[in-house]
Amino acid sequence: MARYSPSVQNLISKLGALPGIGGKSAQRLAFHILSMSNEDALSLTSAINEARRLTKRCGQCQNFTDSDPCPICSDPKRDKSMVCVVESPRDVSAFERMHEYNGQYHVLHGVYNPVGNTSMNDITLTELFGRLTEHDEIKEVIVATNQTAEGNATALYISRLLSPSGIKVTRLASGLPMGSDIEFADDLTLASALKGRKTVGS
Amino acid sequence: MARYSPSVQNLISKLGALPGIGGKSAQRLAFHILSMSNEDALSLTSAINEARRLTKRCGQCQNFTDSDPCPICSDPKRDKSMVCVVESPRDVSAFERMHEYNGQYHVLHGVYNPVGNTSMNDITLTELFGRLTEHDEIKEVIVATNQTAEGNATALYISRLLSPSGIKVTRLASGLPMGSDIEFADDLTLASALKGRKTVGS
Repeated sequence: MARYSPSVQNLISKLGALPGIGGKSAQRLAFHILSMSNEDALSLTSAINEARRLTKRCGQCQNFTDSDPCPICSDPKRDKSMVCVVESPRDVSAFERMHEYNGQYHVLHGVYNPVGNTSMNDITLTELFGRLTEHDEIKEVIVATNQTAEGNATALYISRLLSPSGIKVTRLASGLPMGSDIEFADDLTLASALKGRKTVGS
Repeated sequence: MARYSPSVQNLISKLGALPGIGGKSAQRLAFHILSMSNEDALSLTSAINEARRLTKRCGQCQNFTDSDPCPICSDPKRDKSMVCVVESPRDVSAFERMHEYNGQYHVLHGVYNPVGNTSMNDITLTELFGRLTEHDEIKEVIVATNQTAEGNATALYISRLLSPSGIKVTRLASGLPMGSDIEFADDLTLASALKGRKTVGS
């Protein structure tokens, strides 16, 4: 006998296919959704449909937005000489939360991953290079991809392709997180912190 | 400036209201849903709608089912003298996975929680007592609510209400999980294991 009815099993498997949702969570979510009031269930599905209907990619930075160009790209107070290249819209939100960066962004919507199935064409590199050719006020590209093998490979690729253009390509510093204990740092982080050591007081 | 557009913010908050989905996961899920193909998004929302449309509660055990009575209640090979009372449909699935129990179930869809906002009327106790009155072949009620204060309170309440009826009310044994280390057991578990100790070989 099947453990759940086919429609419930189908809901569980669709929820389980979402990122970060394991088998147990998918079951828990499915039964929660089944127990919801009609009103709450409708507001969930219509939130999905509305967000998908209204949201497009900004023609410039490729971030999700409901107005094109997005509020950041169309803000005259933002520094047009810097573009911070990130993997996902959530990274833009992390930068904005910090209130320390006033330049532009470019969202790759992924990262180059030759082992997985993401090629250079799956991420918005063409749009980035197009933007850099069009807007010659861009002087610096800060590659803020994640500190992973894929993030580093993408950064290296961007830097090689831009080297003839004279645009400065930088990468976020890697090292020990603020407030962290050296005792608990992993080897790669500690090695990168050692390699990037700075003169005290500089 | 708002960090996300209103429709995206609404989607994030609807997802964040689901159980076990925190703020970060809700953002991650929202952007995943925005990046999905139209086909995948449609199959997600229709899985939700279909499961809700087809699924009802079994008139007997109150478990979610697409046929009433559910496959377990209508199975003539199941022992009709035992009813295992559980908090959620997922608990039924845990029992069925074990292949050691061949009786009936009753799903409470919650637990009595006087501190929270679940009263005795929010869980299917009326349906349980109705069932016990109607079907006098039921000889034992196994209260398999969780080993929490609320689960224990519910078990005690059921046992008190059933004491005049002569139906045997039992509770799952509590103690150390199989394969666990005493060193890492919490005080309550260890105390309950000590209290419930058994003669070796019995």
